[in-house]
Amino acid sequence: MARDPRFDILFEPMQIGPKTTRNRFYQVPHCNGMGHRYPRAMAEMRGVKAEGGWGVVCTEECSIHPSSDLSPATLMRLWDDSDLPVHELMVEKVHEHNSLAGIQLVHNGFEVANYVTRLPSMSPSDMPTENFPHVHARAMTKADIKDFRRMYVDAALRSRKAGYDIIYAYAAHGTMTLLFQFMLSRYNKRTDEYGGSLENRIRLTREVLEDLKDAVGHDCAIAFRFAVDELLGKEGMQTSEAEDIVGSLAELPDLWDVNVAAWHNDSMPSRFGNEGGQEPYIDFVKKLTTKPVVGVGRFTSPDTMVSQINRGVLDLIGAARPSIADPFLPKKIEQGREDEIRECIGCNMCTSGDYLAYPMRCTQNPTMGEEWRRGWHPVTIDKAPSKSTVLLLVVVLAGLKQHSPYQTEATTLFFLMPGQNSVVALLKKLHCSHCQTGDA
Amino acid sequence: MARDPRFDILFEPMQIGPKTTRNRFYQVPHCNGMGHRYPRAMAEMRGVKAEGGWGVVCTEECSIHPSSDLSPATLMRLWDDSDLPVHELMVEKVHEHNSLAGIQLVHNGFEVANYVTRLPSMSPSDMPTENFPHVHARAMTKADIKDFRRMYVDAALRSRKAGYDIIYAYAAHGTMTLLFQFMLSRYNKRTDEYGGSLENRIRLTREVLEDLKDAVGHDCAIAFRFAVDELLGKEGMQTSEAEDIVGSLAELPDLWDVNVAAWHNDSMPSRFGNEGGQEPYIDFVKKLTTKPVVGVGRFTSPDTMVSQINRGVLDLIGAARPSIADPFLPKKIEQGREDEIRECIGCNMCTSGDYLAYPMRCTQNPTMGEEWRRGWHPVTIDKAPSKSTVLLLVVVLAGLKQHSPYQTEATTLFFLMPGQNSVVALLKKLHCSHCQTGDA
Repeated sequence: MARDPRFDILFEPMQIGPKTTRNRFYQVPHCNGMGHRYPRAMAEMRGVKAEGGWGVVCTEECSIHPSSDLSPATLMRLWDDSDLPVHELMVEKVHEHNSLAGIQLVHNGFEVANYVTRLPSMSPSDMPTENFPHVHARAMTKADIKDFRRMYVDAALRSRKAGYDIIYAYAAHGTMTLLFQFMLSRYNKRTDEYGGSLENRIRLTREVLEDLKDAVGHDCAIAFRFAVDELLGKEGMQTSEAEDIVGSLAELPDLWDVNVAAWHNDSMPSRFGNEGGQEPYIDFVKKLTTKPVVGVGRFTSPDTMVSQINRGVLDLIGAARPSIADPFLPKKIEQGREDEIRECIGCNMCTSGDYLAYPMRCTQNPTMGEEWRRGWHPVTIDKAPSKSTVLLLVVVLAGLKQHSPYQTEATTLFFLMPGQNSVVALLKKLHCSHCQTGDA
Repeated sequence: MARDPRFDILFEPMQIGPKTTRNRFYQVPHCNGMGHRYPRAMAEMRGVKAEGGWGVVCTEECSIHPSSDLSPATLMRLWDDSDLPVHELMVEKVHEHNSLAGIQLVHNGFEVANYVTRLPSMSPSDMPTENFPHVHARAMTKADIKDFRRMYVDAALRSRKAGYDIIYAYAAHGTMTLLFQFMLSRYNKRTDEYGGSLENRIRLTREVLEDLKDAVGHDCAIAFRFAVDELLGKEGMQTSEAEDIVGSLAELPDLWDVNVAAWHNDSMPSRFGNEGGQEPYIDFVKKLTTKPVVGVGRFTSPDTMVSQINRGVLDLIGAARPSIADPFLPKKIEQGREDEIRECIGCNMCTSGDYLAYPMRCTQNPTMGEEWRRGWHPVTIDKAPSKSTVLLLVVVLAGLKQHSPYQTEATTLFFLMPGQNSVVALLKKLHCSHCQTGDA
């Protein structure tokens, strides 16, 4: 089957700085509880999305320095060259399918306890952290600010070395990012040129974006992820101020990735937010910049996507959760099988993996997180065994005197998910079902 | 200096099954937030204790099977041969100093969510777990019980292969261990031969101990760690019932390691419990068995230790926290320097590392957890630099235009801890201060 011509616009290539994405499907950075601790699982999961047609596939947030150590959370990190192999694995899997690989570089500022690295936490101003109440962060000196800019550049240089096409500066998701912390008057009490006026509070962001452009801008696209509204009214970032910020930095990044903060507003459960629900907050951005804009809204309907593009809301269709529920969403639209899309239901089970530091799962896509360990694929599924094979296996399993929980599980899975896997392959794979990490 | 002869008894060798410990100082198993995720840090920390004179040095709890996956907690595991290298590293470090290496094998039963392995949780009876309220554990079938016994034996065989001298069965610390869960009427509602009477409720423990003796008992000592009282009165395990259990299993293990449950009672903060505070609960054990008995009580005074032995309370002086605060406690007594012992103050900062899944630290011993990463040693400390070196370094550091937080930290540490390290060595080491894991 061929795709419906009214969806053609979704498959147009787009220029992002020095790079070109093959279509408008853009997997924005999202956490997943895998990160550098489960590198093969993480890379395979990203690779399957590229295979499913996402023109851009990004990492989760990636710490740029040991002073931003979010342990025990399991994220990406790029602290020195020894972290490169994990990233090279991810980039390779994404490039295999001609997609662009993006990396979201972050410093979490005062929102880390640095449990493992034991370094002091940095902040625009002296204050206790919010997530780790026993940790006090210290106000950054001018030397710290200089260091911080160098950390970002060093990480960007390493990102380029790993092969990434798009490199992010990140000021979104509430107070989790140092750049956003500097923007917010309720945290930034500085009296120097980095505090006070809006121009001062975005100075560090501007400098980092300029640094990134200088360092790697010829080879890589520089993206800026920015939360335009915290939905806190006057207490936080709101659209009126965000308009000034976007206006002021308009042409500096090669791509604007915009959303609302904090996490619970950005990843709104379906009970409280509709598809495309961020449009009223972000639709001003394209009016203030000529650079491409990507945004999210739990998009699963190609008509909604086309509408956002035609009405000038977005250039690229961003997705985190819909790409988890159906890594093959773009390909299904391309092949005229959009009625087969497994729609994200916004249950947010996926986010619990990140919050509890284990590899995420998905209520709509049982293969999510098991792409590498069990070789499960969201679309290509092993043939169901014949009825005679089933009978034989039941007899064999029943006859095994010392059957293990592995076999028990295989039996259960087999009956619960007929046709999902050949039992023989499953039994074989389950035997190494724990060895997801490269620990040993 | 020579040791005071009144402490001689502490340095007598002791027979434990087929093994002999060189003295009575016994580091009981304790968690530390390192485990298999920070293998080099963990092994070096254990090795320093052996160097400091602990005749026996044990692991933290070590999961025997993927169906006991306590992620995101960071413990040891021995699921298959691929986990062996971590253990071999630990055993090597302990044997280097002629100490015995012990391993505490565990299955956590219903107290796991198996977040990473995604296997069902097992339990004596159907019930929701307590620590993970959204997880329901299923009652073990007879086949599961058989599997479970095999898991223990498989792990014991691997432990022997790794070189361990002492192998534990573990039924202590409240409800965290499957064997203990079977013992407790409030969880065990079975109507078969594994539930009901006390003899039935300890049947699985007896079988596991017999299995371990059969499988590895000729080569390794089999220890049994058992909580004699949960301090819950009639609601939980209490001494009256524990007496029957110890009496019934008396000669089966080669060593009894006894304490009170749960964690907060066993690791009582100093504000609520004195040195040797567990004596009233555990002192009956030695009356019921001829096998050696080890117990804990935040022992830091050699006189208290000698008293416990002479009064027939304990044969071996167990310690977790005192061995963290001073890994060289035994050696200091041996050398007549007992007044130099860094006494554990029972602040329990160490336990927070385990609870929050990061490598533990100690308020009394700043080197704890940094033995491998920074090469810090609790006793052998690099000479303080001369005053002229200090001046030179201050000038050099002040003159560095682009000093990093590493250097900032080095400067701070240097002034806070004069004599702890030579600044040059520190600067060198700090440069790889994050690379504690073997992740990349």
